[in-house]
Amino acid sequence: MKAIGVTIDGDEPELLDVPRPEPAPGEALVRTLRVGVDGTDHEVISGAHGGYPAGEEYMVLGHEAVGVVEDGNGSGLEAGDVVVPTVRRKPNGETNEYFRRGEPDMAPEGEYVERGIVGGHGFMAEYFTSPADSLVPVPENLAEYGMLVEPISISEKAFDHAFATREPFDWRPESACVLGNGSLGLMTLWMLGERFDRTYCVGRRSRPDPTLDIIDDLGATYVDSRETPVDEIPAAHEPIDYIYEATGFAPHAIQTVHAIAPNGVGSLLGIPESWEFEVDGGDLHKELVLHNKCLIGTVNSHVTEFEDAVDTLEEMPDWLLEELLTTVATPENVGPAFEDGDDQIKAVVEFDSL
Amino acid sequence: MKAIGVTIDGDEPELLDVPRPEPAPGEALVRTLRVGVDGTDHEVISGAHGGYPAGEEYMVLGHEAVGVVEDGNGSGLEAGDVVVPTVRRKPNGETNEYFRRGEPDMAPEGEYVERGIVGGHGFMAEYFTSPADSLVPVPENLAEYGMLVEPISISEKAFDHAFATREPFDWRPESACVLGNGSLGLMTLWMLGERFDRTYCVGRRSRPDPTLDIIDDLGATYVDSRETPVDEIPAAHEPIDYIYEATGFAPHAIQTVHAIAPNGVGSLLGIPESWEFEVDGGDLHKELVLHNKCLIGTVNSHVTEFEDAVDTLEEMPDWLLEELLTTVATPENVGPAFEDGDDQIKAVVEFDSL
Repeated sequence: MKAIGVTIDGDEPELLDVPRPEPAPGEALVRTLRVGVDGTDHEVISGAHGGYPAGEEYMVLGHEAVGVVEDGNGSGLEAGDVVVPTVRRKPNGETNEYFRRGEPDMAPEGEYVERGIVGGHGFMAEYFTSPADSLVPVPENLAEYGMLVEPISISEKAFDHAFATREPFDWRPESACVLGNGSLGLMTLWMLGERFDRTYCVGRRSRPDPTLDIIDDLGATYVDSRETPVDEIPAAHEPIDYIYEATGFAPHAIQTVHAIAPNGVGSLLGIPESWEFEVDGGDLHKELVLHNKCLIGTVNSHVTEFEDAVDTLEEMPDWLLEELLTTVATPENVGPAFEDGDDQIKAVVEFDSL
Repeated sequence: MKAIGVTIDGDEPELLDVPRPEPAPGEALVRTLRVGVDGTDHEVISGAHGGYPAGEEYMVLGHEAVGVVEDGNGSGLEAGDVVVPTVRRKPNGETNEYFRRGEPDMAPEGEYVERGIVGGHGFMAEYFTSPADSLVPVPENLAEYGMLVEPISISEKAFDHAFATREPFDWRPESACVLGNGSLGLMTLWMLGERFDRTYCVGRRSRPDPTLDIIDDLGATYVDSRETPVDEIPAAHEPIDYIYEATGFAPHAIQTVHAIAPNGVGSLLGIPESWEFEVDGGDLHKELVLHNKCLIGTVNSHVTEFEDAVDTLEEMPDWLLEELLTTVATPENVGPAFEDGDDQIKAVVEFDSL
């Protein structure tokens, strides 16, 4: 079957001919519809992230997928069910406490593989197999955008964890800010617009720009970090009750502490490389303490957060989904899905349709 | 009446003769039993912290107190009730949303005064007045150690906030570490011993030392940070599920992120001065994200946490309380309560007894 992957010697995505997988007991065979591309895929391709499946010379890409069950294989899923796969799987098929609890997203390194990222083939192929309990049903009418469930689930988890930190007191937040104007940032900005009175989005782009148009259309305020660094947002606009970082720009972790309002919380989601720089560690520490602030990192997500993401996707306006999806590439001409220009917001590779 | 305070021109605690306060409507008059001394008092004395009550040339010290109601003044408290006062009060007597919610500890700067710390007289006097809803009843048998309720309440709040951050998943922590071996650190170490399988306490002292003896007696492991910096605790001992920082040493905030186990949380309580130093901000950020870690600051506490602290004090073993209390000074000879040698753990000034 056709698959898009990287080979050990390669440095770009290639169309590969690989064996069609056979579902093991408990697994379903899924016919792939669409697979999204994100920054992690670019890191996998450049070798900055991930690792090949054991003993393999290539890895199939893709961790944001939607497909339709081809063969339920006695797993409880029926042929024709539209499903989205979660990403983490048991390492070497051996379970552990995190998988037993249904929380593989909380497993430390070494206790999981991630399909299409580290140690496991991804979903960017005509078919994939998956344990049925790692497949989340999606209504048929969402099939076209189902590959967005995975990234949305990342924000569902970030919100769950961040807002739990404010549960011990009567938190009455009004403002939220997303750092980063990629597709995840923009979807998250919409999600925050449903929860907060005023939203902001930080980027480094000049108008005209399609992402800045979306920020405007979402009723959010665009903050150009070349003019207003994140820690100057309180002075330029207002202190922010909730900040969601999706840039992977290391200084943003520190600046977030200064940009959040008293009793606020900052979610970190980016994964920067090592980078030493000067920080006022005393001010950082004092600011966290004296204003009851919290900085919380989250990674990945699990089934219940995928389920929440399905609900969120269902509520997202059509215009937003249409504007986000800038490229639908074919496996035979996959290049445009991996281009990363300012016109690109979200690209997918389409293998089939319902 | 006798009071211990600092004057605007002074730089050490003095015995003052000040007017006995009259309770306003809703306030009770309290006869002071004991008042504890902590690091904040030393900061207030040195001028590094706080500010004098408006229009006053002196400030009465002390924010950790226990007393007995002298005159309930129709407030619902009865003469003879043993009580502990909370610390934050309305600024200029004007209420605000935080006080209305019973959460003055969540008020940002400017929205509170702190008795004995900033903008309000403390409790280190023969009598004090307080709104009755800022007085927490204490069983008579705890009167001798009631001044410990305030510091314990600080840890109750820190725990409430820190453990809430781990509620969204099935957290199964085993190890905890206190940074700091002062009286607050040692009481917190006991509290953590009730909740965690293995506890550690970080200090910078050599044996023989009375605080290290207490660490031993609590069954905890002492970590000398001169030999094992905080971020090397995982290699030397184990990654720590919960770290409680009570040193105010700014690098500890950063090191805590590296010392906590995957899915762990670090509470910050110290209040360092501004201090620039080099940090690997990329590693810090990545570590928070990839391992779902959380860093949370908390300050002060409110009535329900004082009530929890009363329960905790009741459970604390007598031997610990006896070993912690190294000095009971009189108002007339208060000097020993403000000495800060290695033999001093907790000092109090005693005004009266039941």
